[in-house]
Amino acid sequence: MRTRPLKVALLGCGVVGSEVARIMTTHADDLAARIGAPIELAGVAVRRPDKVRGGIDPALITTDATALVKRGDIDVVVEVIGGIEPARTLITTAFEHGASVVSANKALLAQDGATLYAAAEQHGQDLYYEAAVAGAIPLIRPLRESLAGDKINRVMGIVNGTTNFILDKMDSTGAGYQEALDEATALGYAEADPTADVEGFDAAAKAAILAGIAFHTRVRLDDVYREGMTEVTAADFASARQMGCTIKLLAICERAADGGSVTARVHPAMIPLSHPLASVREAYNAVFVEAEAAGRLMFYGPGAGGSPTASAVLGDIVAVCRNRLNEATGPGESAYTQLPVSPMGDVVTRYHISLDVADKPGVLAQVATVFAEHGVSIDTVRQQGKDGEASLVVVTHRAADAALSGTVEALRKLDTVRGVASIMRVEGE
Amino acid sequence: MRTRPLKVALLGCGVVGSEVARIMTTHADDLAARIGAPIELAGVAVRRPDKVRGGIDPALITTDATALVKRGDIDVVVEVIGGIEPARTLITTAFEHGASVVSANKALLAQDGATLYAAAEQHGQDLYYEAAVAGAIPLIRPLRESLAGDKINRVMGIVNGTTNFILDKMDSTGAGYQEALDEATALGYAEADPTADVEGFDAAAKAAILAGIAFHTRVRLDDVYREGMTEVTAADFASARQMGCTIKLLAICERAADGGSVTARVHPAMIPLSHPLASVREAYNAVFVEAEAAGRLMFYGPGAGGSPTASAVLGDIVAVCRNRLNEATGPGESAYTQLPVSPMGDVVTRYHISLDVADKPGVLAQVATVFAEHGVSIDTVRQQGKDGEASLVVVTHRAADAALSGTVEALRKLDTVRGVASIMRVEGE
Repeated sequence: MRTRPLKVALLGCGVVGSEVARIMTTHADDLAARIGAPIELAGVAVRRPDKVRGGIDPALITTDATALVKRGDIDVVVEVIGGIEPARTLITTAFEHGASVVSANKALLAQDGATLYAAAEQHGQDLYYEAAVAGAIPLIRPLRESLAGDKINRVMGIVNGTTNFILDKMDSTGAGYQEALDEATALGYAEADPTADVEGFDAAAKAAILAGIAFHTRVRLDDVYREGMTEVTAADFASARQMGCTIKLLAICERAADGGSVTARVHPAMIPLSHPLASVREAYNAVFVEAEAAGRLMFYGPGAGGSPTASAVLGDIVAVCRNRLNEATGPGESAYTQLPVSPMGDVVTRYHISLDVADKPGVLAQVATVFAEHGVSIDTVRQQGKDGEASLVVVTHRAADAALSGTVEALRKLDTVRGVASIMRVEGE
Repeated sequence: MRTRPLKVALLGCGVVGSEVARIMTTHADDLAARIGAPIELAGVAVRRPDKVRGGIDPALITTDATALVKRGDIDVVVEVIGGIEPARTLITTAFEHGASVVSANKALLAQDGATLYAAAEQHGQDLYYEAAVAGAIPLIRPLRESLAGDKINRVMGIVNGTTNFILDKMDSTGAGYQEALDEATALGYAEADPTADVEGFDAAAKAAILAGIAFHTRVRLDDVYREGMTEVTAADFASARQMGCTIKLLAICERAADGGSVTARVHPAMIPLSHPLASVREAYNAVFVEAEAAGRLMFYGPGAGGSPTASAVLGDIVAVCRNRLNEATGPGESAYTQLPVSPMGDVVTRYHISLDVADKPGVLAQVATVFAEHGVSIDTVRQQGKDGEASLVVVTHRAADAALSGTVEALRKLDTVRGVASIMRVEGE
C-alpha cells in the first residue's frame, strides 16, 4: 500500500461536510485499505470559521475556498456548499489545478452539468456526484455503469423526501396540505422556506440529472416540466383511494415511443397501491428504472440527511482516489445520443379529472362529447349528485398532455360545468 | 473514438450467452459510444456446435474453449457456462493470456473466488461478476463501489427467484409445497431437478459472495449455514399470518455485534408483512442492505432470466472495456479485514416454535422452565387445546441459535411434549 496520503479538501462543513470529515477520521484505516493509500483531510473551506467544528483540526479551516482549490497538492475536492456560484467556479478551478471533484450539488449539475464535465475532461479529472440524487441510494453509478450495456426506457421515482413525508401524512391521517407541512417543519423534514421542495424545484433538478444519464443526452433544469404539490387536497386523496391509488410527487423521465426524443417532468400523480412506489413511506426515496433487457428495477433508501449523503460522498471519494492511483479516470459525460427533450404537451399518460357540474340530464353526454372531440378516450366515469349540484370524475385512457389541456379548456366553457375541481395524472400501470 | 474493436469471447451460448451475443449485435452502436471503441464478438465456445444459433456467424462457433481463451487477442472473456470445471481453468487461462473476465458463475465464485481474484491480480486483469448475484439488479457494484466508504452491517435478501415464486404461491393460494413446486415447474420457474434452488444451495452461494464483499473478508460456500424450504407447510403460513408475518427464504449476512466476526446463512424465516421484503412477489429478488451511514437501502428487480442476466453481463463488459482503454483495472478482491465466519450457533435472532403438547395443567409451566433454563426469553405464547391434545406456539426474544437448539432438544425429552411441529426463525424487526 502507498504510504503517501491522497489529499482531500472539503468545500463546506455543514450537516454533510462535517459528517464526511468525521467518517474520514473515524474510519481512516478502512478507507485506506479499500483505496490502497491513506487519505488525509487537507483543508476545509467555510464561511464562518469561528463556529465550533468538533473533531476538525482548526488549522485546516479557511475562509478562502479559492486558495484551497488552487493549492495544487489537492487530489480530491469535495463540494458540499450547493448553489450555482461560487460552487461552479470553485469546481472548474479545482479541475484546472489538478484535482478531481466529488459534488452533491444537484442544482448546479442540473443547470450546467455540461460545463463541469467539459472542464473535468479538459484537465483529465474525475467528476463524481452520487450524492446529488437520492442521497445514499446508489443510483448514479448503477445508471452510468451497471446499466451501461442496456437501454433504459423510463426512470420514475420519489426523489424528494420532504414532499413524500407530507403526502404520506396526508394519506395516512387525512390531514390537509398545510397541517402536514407544519408537522414536517416541526420534525425538521421541511425547511423554513419549503419552496424548493414543495414546488418541485429540487425534484426537477434531480429529474434533469437522471434523464441525462439514463438517455445519454443533455437535459437541463429548464427542460423539465414542473408542477408542485401545494394544491393536492384531502379530497384528492379520497378520490385516489376510491381508485385504489395513492398520490406521490413523481419525477418521470421517459424515452418517447418512437425513440426519437425524451421527456422529463415532475408533478403529483396517482399511482396504484400495488405499485412498489406506493408503499414508500415518510421521507424515504425510491426510484423505479425500466430497461429493455434488465426489466423493472427499484432502488430504495433514505434520500437525504447528513449521514446518508456522506455515505454517497465517501463512496465517490474512494472511487476517485482508486482512479488516481490507477492513473485513470472514471466515465465522463455520455451525451452522444443528442436526443431532444420534447415539451410536456407531447407526454402521453392517463388523467383523473374531477368536475363540478349541474345536476341535470344530458350533462354527461355534453362532457363526453368534449373528450371525444379532443381525441381523449374515457376509461371510467363516476357521477355523484347532491342538491342540484353534481360531481363527475372522469378517468381517461392514455392521451397526449396537449389533448388533455385542450379538453379541459373546452370543458370550462360549458355552461353545465361549474368548475374543474382537480386534474391529476395517473401513472404506474 | 478508437476504431480498432475490443474483442469479446463467449464461453457458453445458452439462454444468457445467446442474449449477450444478440444485444452486442443489435446495440453495437450504443455500446461503442459508451465504451469509446467498438466491440466485436470474436468467438463463441459451445458444447454442441450443430445447434442452430440465430444471428451468430457460424464461423465464430468452436468447441475448443481452451484454444479460444488462449488466442491472445481476446480482450474480454465472458464465462456463462457455470459449474466449477472447466470454468475455473478457462478463467485462469484467460487471465494468463491477457484477457479480463466477466462471469455469471456464482458457484465458482462462492467456492473458489480467491483463486480467481489472485489470478486476475497476478496478470493485471479485471474480474467482474455482477450477474452472479440477483441477475439484473445492480448489487455487486453498489456494494463494492458505492458503499466503499461506508460500513455495512447487514445484507438480507431474497436471492432465489424459484423459491420465492413457490413461497409466494403457498402464501397467496394456501397451496402446499409440492403443489406450488409443480406449478413453478410447469411455468418454467423451477428446473426438472429443483434441488439447487429449494435446498438453498443457490442462495447460499450468493450469500457467500455478498458476505465477502460486504464485510471485506473471505466467505466460502462451506461457511454458509444452509436450510432449504421443502419442509415449509401451509400450517407454517397460517401461523405466520397470525403473527402478521409471511415466510421467505432469506440469505442473511451479518457482522457480529462486537464487530469481530461475521455470519452468513440461508433458511426460511418469518418476516413482518410491513417489511419491504415481505411484498416481493413471484420470482423477483430483493436485497436489503443496512450500512452505518447510509441507513437502510433496498435493491429490487428480476433475479434471473436470459435478458436480465445479459443486462448485468453487458454492464460488466462495458466497464471492463472502459478499463482497458484507460489501461487500468477496476477494484480487485478486498478481503483485508480477515474477519472469521462464526458458526450458526453464534447467530442471534428470534424464533417461532410450534409444539404439540398434552392438554393438561402445568404443561406451559414445564415448557417455560426449559426455555428459562437455556437462557431463552419468551416473548409470547399461544395455547390452543382440542380433544386432549394441545398446541403451544412460542415466540422468543433474541437468543443465540445454540441456546435455542439446546432448548428444543430438552423440550423433546419432556413427557408432555408430543412433538416439535416446527421451528422457524423470525427476522426483520
